[in-house]
Amino acid sequence: MEYRKIKDEDNDGGTVSNDIENLRGIGFSGVASVSNVPPREQAKWKRKTVVTVALTFLTSSQAILIVWSKRAGKYEYSVTTANFLVETLKCALSLAALARIWKSEGVTEDNRLSTTLDEVIVYPIPALLYLVKNLLQYYIFAYVDAPGYQILKNLNIISTGVLYRIILKKKLSDIQWAAFILLCAGCTTAQLNSRSDHVLQTSLPGWIMAIVMALLSGFAGVYTEAIIKKRPSRNINVQNFWLYIFGMTFNAIAILIQDFDAVMNKGFFHGYSIITTLMILNHALSGIAVSMVMKYADNIVKVYSTSVAMLLTAVVSVLLFGFNLTLAFFLGATVVSVSVYLHSAGKLQR
Amino acid sequence: MEYRKIKDEDNDGGTVSNDIENLRGIGFSGVASVSNVPPREQAKWKRKTVVTVALTFLTSSQAILIVWSKRAGKYEYSVTTANFLVETLKCALSLAALARIWKSEGVTEDNRLSTTLDEVIVYPIPALLYLVKNLLQYYIFAYVDAPGYQILKNLNIISTGVLYRIILKKKLSDIQWAAFILLCAGCTTAQLNSRSDHVLQTSLPGWIMAIVMALLSGFAGVYTEAIIKKRPSRNINVQNFWLYIFGMTFNAIAILIQDFDAVMNKGFFHGYSIITTLMILNHALSGIAVSMVMKYADNIVKVYSTSVAMLLTAVVSVLLFGFNLTLAFFLGATVVSVSVYLHSAGKLQR
Repeated sequence: MEYRKIKDEDNDGGTVSNDIENLRGIGFSGVASVSNVPPREQAKWKRKTVVTVALTFLTSSQAILIVWSKRAGKYEYSVTTANFLVETLKCALSLAALARIWKSEGVTEDNRLSTTLDEVIVYPIPALLYLVKNLLQYYIFAYVDAPGYQILKNLNIISTGVLYRIILKKKLSDIQWAAFILLCAGCTTAQLNSRSDHVLQTSLPGWIMAIVMALLSGFAGVYTEAIIKKRPSRNINVQNFWLYIFGMTFNAIAILIQDFDAVMNKGFFHGYSIITTLMILNHALSGIAVSMVMKYADNIVKVYSTSVAMLLTAVVSVLLFGFNLTLAFFLGATVVSVSVYLHSAGKLQR
Repeated sequence: MEYRKIKDEDNDGGTVSNDIENLRGIGFSGVASVSNVPPREQAKWKRKTVVTVALTFLTSSQAILIVWSKRAGKYEYSVTTANFLVETLKCALSLAALARIWKSEGVTEDNRLSTTLDEVIVYPIPALLYLVKNLLQYYIFAYVDAPGYQILKNLNIISTGVLYRIILKKKLSDIQWAAFILLCAGCTTAQLNSRSDHVLQTSLPGWIMAIVMALLSGFAGVYTEAIIKKRPSRNINVQNFWLYIFGMTFNAIAILIQDFDAVMNKGFFHGYSIITTLMILNHALSGIAVSMVMKYADNIVKVYSTSVAMLLTAVVSVLLFGFNLTLAFFLGATVVSVSVYLHSAGKLQR
């Protein structure tokens, strides 16, 4: 694979080692030692921190909007049309950002919208992987209930780590692997409830599907990073534009397959409310934040960011909706916090 | 404190760094790299491993005997008389071991039973601390129920680590501290059940008592290690003999206070069964194993050993009594396993 060659030449794992400063910035100390770092590295570090913090807060508020919309009543709108609008909005935002850049910097080799087949041929792959995963999602509920699926989704963490290692050929230290296992265990612990033990009774086909879905999701994430990082100097907004064009296409197909009749009879925007609009806006912004994290950080940072967001969501839900925090949540949050620390400390060993 | 001076001179943390080989021997790889170690170190390492493995299995079988005796019916015997017999048996076993040593090696300065006031004056302190802790135990149940108390007992792990650092002045690396927090979180997670959340409603006096009890228990353990290690060449059986003499004394006092009437009316051995006898034998042997771990390893190894024993107990209980393992148990066991690994990996950093 061409990508691997590039990575092997210019990457000695530095990206992984530097990632955690972002997370430290968000989650814990808040005091990162950037004083001895040259200005260019410092700018890079700042950009990483900004996109990671943005992703964390957008993911967290996304979950809160979902809780809010559930409490306000059932989903009345069609999910496929909302997904299509999210992709369209992301596309529009990328174009708007590009327009500003063209105005200030002019059109260059790196920020021109036109592309080659060689560049664009891989862009549909992540969108296709997500489509297959979303289709499987309908079938897995024959084997696992919704809370059980929430628990099994934590397998994504492990699959992302493994595929990140295999596909991107980036190394994690032993301590960082230990931290990654802890992240998975900690997130699962934080989500435990009285009915979680049901998940242990999941049948073999259920387990296989859960593992396949985790691999698909992990592969889509890691592959997106590979695509974006393959051309480091290419403007991220152009890369996003092409990713989202295929996202729009596949979501249009999903509307045709699943919701064609409903859209024809009730209209495209049937059931949309203010919350729906906010959710679409939030999904679009967090989608862009994910791409930015892939460009300037990596999938490991993404996983940590969304895990911390999960904990933040729970804490905010207590304040907003009067939820109770469980002992399992405190224990899981402790384990996740130690995991974040260890991911940082793990790099010292190299 | 005189002890500190000795430790500061002859200890650079080597004991902590080497400890984990024992645990690795028990818990995980089973393959420890002893090939490059000189024979004397290897003998030391073997002795550590033997006492640690012994402690783990004795603690585990102790818990299983308790479950067995509970299923067989209520405790009919008086706990104070059983405790007294445990101390007496430990005393007798120490004397028997000493008799063998005197026969083979003769009586020396290090293995003679007679002692000085300077040596013996500190020996009642651990026994006294345990007595205070056991008295408090009656009062804490006004604030916390029994399963809640099981959960709160995991504070012992943290208190032992902190007091070990403060009193024995031995350093743990940052990774080892992280591992210790994980050990506490993992053990608690493994014990979670549907009623565990009650513990979060514990009132302030309940928390204070739980913390005081954890400190008393941690202090007793660390202080015992300080006493035993203060005279490294002194025979452990002599040290044990004097520790247990005071244990007998304090337990005799406890019989007089709590069970004098019952013992007078029903007899000393009322309600004793085969299980009771096995439990007394087991407690005596694990008490001696604890002393040996204090002599040849330390409190950190003891805490890891008893935590691994807790997990072993759960697994064996599944086989023996048909208990079900919960998802929380698997998650807790994963976190404890990673903690054991990290305690080992943490020493590389120094």
